[in-house]
Amino acid sequence: MPERIEVDTVIVGAGLAGLTAARDLVAAGRDVVVLEARDRVGGRTLNHALSDGTVVEVGGQWIGPTQLRMAKLVADLGLETFATYGEGEHVLRFGTSLARYRGAIPRISPVVLADMGQAQARFDRLAQRVPLEAPWAADRAEAWDSQTFATWIRRNVRTAKGRALFDLFAEGVFAAEPGDFSLLHALFYTHSGGGIDMLAGTRGGAQQDRFVGGSQLVALGLAEQLGDRVRLGAPVRRIDHRDAGVTVLADGILATGRDVVVAVPPTLAARMLYEPALPGYRDQLTQRVPAGSVIKCNVVYDAPFWRDDGLTGQATGDRGPVKVTFDNSPPSGTPGVLLGFLEGEHARRLNRFAPAERREAVIGSLVDYFGPQARSPIEYVELDWSEEEWTRGCYGAHFPTGVWTQYGPALRASIGHIHWAGAETATVWNGYMDGAVQSGERAAAEILNP
Amino acid sequence: MPERIEVDTVIVGAGLAGLTAARDLVAAGRDVVVLEARDRVGGRTLNHALSDGTVVEVGGQWIGPTQLRMAKLVADLGLETFATYGEGEHVLRFGTSLARYRGAIPRISPVVLADMGQAQARFDRLAQRVPLEAPWAADRAEAWDSQTFATWIRRNVRTAKGRALFDLFAEGVFAAEPGDFSLLHALFYTHSGGGIDMLAGTRGGAQQDRFVGGSQLVALGLAEQLGDRVRLGAPVRRIDHRDAGVTVLADGILATGRDVVVAVPPTLAARMLYEPALPGYRDQLTQRVPAGSVIKCNVVYDAPFWRDDGLTGQATGDRGPVKVTFDNSPPSGTPGVLLGFLEGEHARRLNRFAPAERREAVIGSLVDYFGPQARSPIEYVELDWSEEEWTRGCYGAHFPTGVWTQYGPALRASIGHIHWAGAETATVWNGYMDGAVQSGERAAAEILNP
Repeated sequence: MPERIEVDTVIVGAGLAGLTAARDLVAAGRDVVVLEARDRVGGRTLNHALSDGTVVEVGGQWIGPTQLRMAKLVADLGLETFATYGEGEHVLRFGTSLARYRGAIPRISPVVLADMGQAQARFDRLAQRVPLEAPWAADRAEAWDSQTFATWIRRNVRTAKGRALFDLFAEGVFAAEPGDFSLLHALFYTHSGGGIDMLAGTRGGAQQDRFVGGSQLVALGLAEQLGDRVRLGAPVRRIDHRDAGVTVLADGILATGRDVVVAVPPTLAARMLYEPALPGYRDQLTQRVPAGSVIKCNVVYDAPFWRDDGLTGQATGDRGPVKVTFDNSPPSGTPGVLLGFLEGEHARRLNRFAPAERREAVIGSLVDYFGPQARSPIEYVELDWSEEEWTRGCYGAHFPTGVWTQYGPALRASIGHIHWAGAETATVWNGYMDGAVQSGERAAAEILNP
Repeated sequence: MPERIEVDTVIVGAGLAGLTAARDLVAAGRDVVVLEARDRVGGRTLNHALSDGTVVEVGGQWIGPTQLRMAKLVADLGLETFATYGEGEHVLRFGTSLARYRGAIPRISPVVLADMGQAQARFDRLAQRVPLEAPWAADRAEAWDSQTFATWIRRNVRTAKGRALFDLFAEGVFAAEPGDFSLLHALFYTHSGGGIDMLAGTRGGAQQDRFVGGSQLVALGLAEQLGDRVRLGAPVRRIDHRDAGVTVLADGILATGRDVVVAVPPTLAARMLYEPALPGYRDQLTQRVPAGSVIKCNVVYDAPFWRDDGLTGQATGDRGPVKVTFDNSPPSGTPGVLLGFLEGEHARRLNRFAPAERREAVIGSLVDYFGPQARSPIEYVELDWSEEEWTRGCYGAHFPTGVWTQYGPALRASIGHIHWAGAETATVWNGYMDGAVQSGERAAAEILNP
């Protein structure tokens, strides 16, 4: 017989969204239980200790300007942040040719720069015309949602290098190819995060700062305050929902309450059994919002040798398989850690490599960017989020064509006593930690002020 | 304790795919059990008895030329077919203006006809360039898969009416909007069924003939031959798969065998628990292949009054909500039954209407096409397939942009002893009954000739 728990609100998922909802409900005097499938909290944030004890993140890791909810959590939990390493020059690789540059603007031909600048300005202008609460209500919503971001790029970016940089933006920010999602989604998401420069940038952008000790400390700190309200190893299988309240069955636990907050990605929310079954409109939404594809690789060296070479460790290239890198060394600078992302098509392709082959391919890219010293790491740590049974893809969900306009209103609409949270349901910083926190606050508010 | 069953092969789903696989395996001397969630067989085919006993279908219902596997089943099971009613003139409605025409070519302006003809020829030519076994290997696969069918229509069809007719084709055949899926998918699916005329046509096309007594008789006949190997009311919750074989847990039944055939739509296949969990590449595929949206409405009259008016009962219109109709009367012609389809965006919108409002809207469309006599049916039967917990959408799945090229190879690839069937996995008549049968035959062959 499962253990029986009676509370006011049952929360499914101990990522930042679920933990935030729990925090707000507890602060308002409600009883809650948080049922988490994994044996850990944090969802898409996850610390990993290297063999020398240094903590690196294998999941989401940055905090940037305007992410006010995360900044407040950092302060509330007494955590510290530090700047992502950025001294020196970045590397840009087109084909086999390498360029080094300083600051935000790569040293490429003025024709490409003008092309990019014009396209970016146009895109950012369009993005601001998408209402964050209701992307489907944009004046050109239907036209924007029936074409892919790739179609827009092909029409609006004239140079091959400019298109390659837009592709990089899609892969780096959405972990998907520009052909995978709609222009309306690209515009919404960009507006939600504050523009292309904000999403793509390091200094002044979403990759600006890091967490001392790793980003999972935020979830761990929240969970600590919740104490034994958080139950690990309890994947939820079934949610019975009636006018009188809900019954949530997890492995080993049967929790009853008035409300339930489902704080997992939409595609996973669809995999639990609901009794009665959910309305078709909601069900069809959850068939249509896949998670992106990313394998995050931390490659560890005795020292950050690229720094001696005057490099920031930030590289981008149009070939891959690693198309984006960062210096991910700890604040002390030792060991040196290069972060390499496999995103979109490269993540999908290398997912099917044997581990040793994939490692070889990743390190090969780092050698292309940073020279032969990159050939011999002392440690290699990767996480393919598509293989994680309780996430099934990162960074977040992207909306293919037609989904925002046809199903958007179902994304946050509660169904009886079922409330939906998670970074995918956020209006600001959708898909980011800050968005996850916003979604948890919103779900708690729905329950506290029905 | 669940009942324990030991067989060679466990089959999940008693639609045409699962039943066909079972038939072939039994014919080869294998023991099978077919576990079906519902209390009936037939999947997306379903007969419904009107109050006078007349049988109409609320699911898939037609059989046409080149559907050789279904034709053979009809013969094997001793069933009979009859021609879809087609005497007289069809109705075409643009805006509020009605035209009547005979045969396949509507009486519209020569400019529109030329535009349509040219676009259709171009589309059919492209379709033939998509390899049915491997759409991702088409020479222009990447370009075709990074744009929507809507984008192609906008570029290749010049007249507003021509575009409206292509939209109708998308809705009628895919139960989705042309912005919902990729051009590559549109081309693959069209090639798979034999061209636009074959898919859209009545005489000489996929809607040519009907089943005396209703199309579900095929599944019922197959199930009868399988006898107590078919277990109803047994939704499968979990599949354990090891080198030695599989264990399949359904409500009330624990079945073990060497192989399992999962013969349900991809999106539902993702909702069972697999132990060990499925590879990320397969899982991400199933996040990306949503089912279409259709509400099928049978509207019953004392007599087929439109026949007296010289009409076939086949109408199309660009406004909706019902954009396609057929005469669905039984062979005797009494009662008169008009079939009205709500497809794509209209299905999604009217899904959220109250039943009486939806009925009113559907009948309103029939009045628009067939005059005031359509105002007063004696019976009204509808089925919204998105609300069906064990289907969650019809007619079949469509592939949004990027899915065929990035995930196509995962569609049929067996994983250990798990084999995949269902109309979505077919190479010919994908999404149709004939494709379901092909997929069942293929899955059985995989097991018999490993």
